Amino acid sequence: MENFMPNFLKKRAFLTPDRPAVYFQNEMITFKDLYERSYSVAGQMQGMGIQKNDFAGVLLKNHLDSVVVLFALQLLGARAVILNNRLTPNEMVWQLEDSGAAFVILDDSFTEIESVVNERLHHIKTTTIKKLFASDSVTPAIQEEISLGDICTIMYTSGTTGYPKGVMQTYGNHWWSATGSALNLGMTDRDCWLCSVPLFHISGFSILMRGIIYGIPIVLHERFDVDKTIQTIQEKRVTIMSVVSTMLTQIVDALEEQRLPGYFRCMLLGGGPAPLPLLQSCQKKEIPVFQTYGMTETASQIVTLAPEYCLTKLGSAGKPLFPSQIKIVREDGAEAQAGEVGGIIVKGPNVTPGYLNRPKATKETIRNGWLNTGDIGYLDEEGFLYVLDRRSDLIISGGENIYPAEVEAVILSHPDIIDVGVTGIEDAKWGQVPVAFLVKKADSELSVEEIENYCLKQLAKYKVPKYIFFTEELPRNAAKKLLRRTLKEWIHEGRFCT
Amino acid sequence: MENFMPNFLKKRAFLTPDRPAVYFQNEMITFKDLYERSYSVAGQMQGMGIQKNDFAGVLLKNHLDSVVVLFALQLLGARAVILNNRLTPNEMVWQLEDSGAAFVILDDSFTEIESVVNERLHHIKTTTIKKLFASDSVTPAIQEEISLGDICTIMYTSGTTGYPKGVMQTYGNHWWSATGSALNLGMTDRDCWLCSVPLFHISGFSILMRGIIYGIPIVLHERFDVDKTIQTIQEKRVTIMSVVSTMLTQIVDALEEQRLPGYFRCMLLGGGPAPLPLLQSCQKKEIPVFQTYGMTETASQIVTLAPEYCLTKLGSAGKPLFPSQIKIVREDGAEAQAGEVGGIIVKGPNVTPGYLNRPKATKETIRNGWLNTGDIGYLDEEGFLYVLDRRSDLIISGGENIYPAEVEAVILSHPDIIDVGVTGIEDAKWGQVPVAFLVKKADSELSVEEIENYCLKQLAKYKVPKYIFFTEELPRNAAKKLLRRTLKEWIHEGRFCT
Repeated sequence: MENFMPNFLKKRAFLTPDRPAVYFQNEMITFKDLYERSYSVAGQMQGMGIQKNDFAGVLLKNHLDSVVVLFALQLLGARAVILNNRLTPNEMVWQLEDSGAAFVILDDSFTEIESVVNERLHHIKTTTIKKLFASDSVTPAIQEEISLGDICTIMYTSGTTGYPKGVMQTYGNHWWSATGSALNLGMTDRDCWLCSVPLFHISGFSILMRGIIYGIPIVLHERFDVDKTIQTIQEKRVTIMSVVSTMLTQIVDALEEQRLPGYFRCMLLGGGPAPLPLLQSCQKKEIPVFQTYGMTETASQIVTLAPEYCLTKLGSAGKPLFPSQIKIVREDGAEAQAGEVGGIIVKGPNVTPGYLNRPKATKETIRNGWLNTGDIGYLDEEGFLYVLDRRSDLIISGGENIYPAEVEAVILSHPDIIDVGVTGIEDAKWGQVPVAFLVKKADSELSVEEIENYCLKQLAKYKVPKYIFFTEELPRNAAKKLLRRTLKEWIHEGRFCT
Repeated sequence: MENFMPNFLKKRAFLTPDRPAVYFQNEMITFKDLYERSYSVAGQMQGMGIQKNDFAGVLLKNHLDSVVVLFALQLLGARAVILNNRLTPNEMVWQLEDSGAAFVILDDSFTEIESVVNERLHHIKTTTIKKLFASDSVTPAIQEEISLGDICTIMYTSGTTGYPKGVMQTYGNHWWSATGSALNLGMTDRDCWLCSVPLFHISGFSILMRGIIYGIPIVLHERFDVDKTIQTIQEKRVTIMSVVSTMLTQIVDALEEQRLPGYFRCMLLGGGPAPLPLLQSCQKKEIPVFQTYGMTETASQIVTLAPEYCLTKLGSAGKPLFPSQIKIVREDGAEAQAGEVGGIIVKGPNVTPGYLNRPKATKETIRNGWLNTGDIGYLDEEGFLYVLDRRSDLIISGGENIYPAEVEAVILSHPDIIDVGVTGIEDAKWGQVPVAFLVKKADSELSVEEIENYCLKQLAKYKVPKYIFFTEELPRNAAKKLLRRTLKEWIHEGRFCT
């Protein structure tokens, strides 16, 4: 049964026109303002030829204008192919071609890439935001109703493994993600969500969607800045913020003896398990941390750990949101027992219908409604999920499986360790052996031997990293996901000698 | 695209096993308890032959056991035909036959009706709750997953007009109703919903569903009792309560100089527009009243008025919930302008797919996804809905249309009036004329002439009731809906002389 709903932004502007929708820099706009601006830009987009069901590439920064562009596309029923602005021009051109986009809208600072696109993809019409906002307008054909099955956005998977694929995210995916999250975190009209993660990533884009679905303001920052964050939480009465570990660490450090205000109720922490000392500091400073597990394919979080479990269930991502389900399956496809490691598969109305123009990859990834995440993990007796690793990151050493994330979790539990990355390298004797890169506290005098002994107490000998290196920073992508391939390259390039 | 979800109760018990689910009398049970009891009863139901997709009649009172019975049916995937316990045995037998129910489960106090059913419907297996709970159990075939399109409940429309029809309510209808309401009212894990409206009515049943979907406790009362209500709000930290005008009036009166605690945040008021003095008293006593419009076919509220509008938009039911849409249509089917009176049609994922075994009635009522409510009203310039009347209640006097609700609203705005019902009676000269029945404050000395003059100042002369009677109470059904036919009967029976 197909479900229709009113256009999200239009409905929100109708219901609560005068509530603040977005704070950006020194500006505040209401839902009515946001609708009117988006309506006007939709007219300009239609003037340049964009129509319902068209694919339009967008290359944007965290800016109020970007919000307007994204909602203007929704008003027209066009699909936004949201490009990661850290990609190389080559990668962007590849994704634009792959998606069949006929238009590209770029932030004014990306004129160089505009030239590349104009040169190499003659069939694509490009415009900067500035040119678009100054262009002629027609009366736009607004989609008063949307079907929850319609495609809203395309985001290419980060490509840390394999070739990038365009994940189709429907209006329903975003809707169910937002309502599933609300049922977990609660939601009131006094909420306010701070977004300093990239809008081009599902972590940021999902905040936009929650804002209009819940009718709450979002505060949009161009990028993460710790002092500005703490100041904004107080000035704008922010109640929820999406973070990754490195951001949270900075916040905790900057707070010193200070506390966040009592109305601040949720740090939504994505991007993998958090180090023990960080969680302990958060508890000491009464910062409620909700750890999550999610991906582009699930339109953001699908599993969340409530703060009361953050130490007793250390390393767990929590339980699946109300509308969603997870299972652990063995190699042979059978469901695993509690405690047994296997592939993580997920199901739910927030899960993508598949990859754009990739029926084969879609069929391989989604079977009977269950999407294979490619991740490895297990459920404990109570049904809490522990994510061990990306399957492709598995290290096989002397025939034994080693999950980098398991080793990382042990090392992260050391009070002097801030960040860690483990990967496997070739080894003549064992096939592969684990190697660890560590970031330690500035004042720590921790030695390689000490951390080795620490590991030996908690891990089977074959899992203990054969080589341990200290470094200043780990390689992470825009979504702050660890790039294990880069760690391997560091070794191959001789930056660290084994 | 069909949407599957985990079984609601099972998922809730998995997510938050230890939270309180139901308070009833002196007992409290958690979601885990509720699941376990329902699981056990599901085994007993299956033992008596109930299976997935079976229709099972239930004739229940507001009691913890009833909650268990209703959820046990959901665990099996059986459909509950929920009988109104104020019906006559004849009416119940008719509905059971009409629905094709093969089983009936009755509260222990309804043994008389059990005999009638046993006598007249030989194909139906009956059991009281007591016998069921003492019967042999088998391992039940639990529906781990449900499709949102599956039928969860059948409720017959009250039948104040026409013959009763079984409204099919899907799991999706209840889900979307609950989430639509949460997006409007907000929702946190500190909420607690007091239910003293009947569980057999959508107003009560929808509270059950919200409880498990939100993960909040409900307090179940056997019936409305004003002193117990005020006491419970304090003792159980109730934050939300569903009421109709007569209940709210009693609460306001009983409070005297007292105030409800600050955490109490919503009186959800159904059953038609509230009298002005009542709304004024609520405002004075800082009771936040959310007026609503809804029906069995929309799985409870579909339009709600926020408290800040309760006086400025007097008589309005508000705006449709986020997922839902309303339109006013003229006789010719075209959409009406703002301010123009017409038929109210509604659309949304909370709207019933139709009437059980009534394809013709379904086709007549639902066209292109829009359900004709049979009600008459208009939208103002800002899109607020004003419900004028049931179409069938329309009074035609000398060729002029008179909407009883319009006349009632005017009379209700008089500070001495507590309740009013208007209907039309035959008249030799005009065809029909309006007649009003009034309930005034105990200490009021208001006369018929005074109220007549009051009306004349605000209504066209033909709309002013030709006959005005004072009475102690108005006839209302279990859902507190005014029974205008009974008013007519009062006249025909000579109880009031025209």
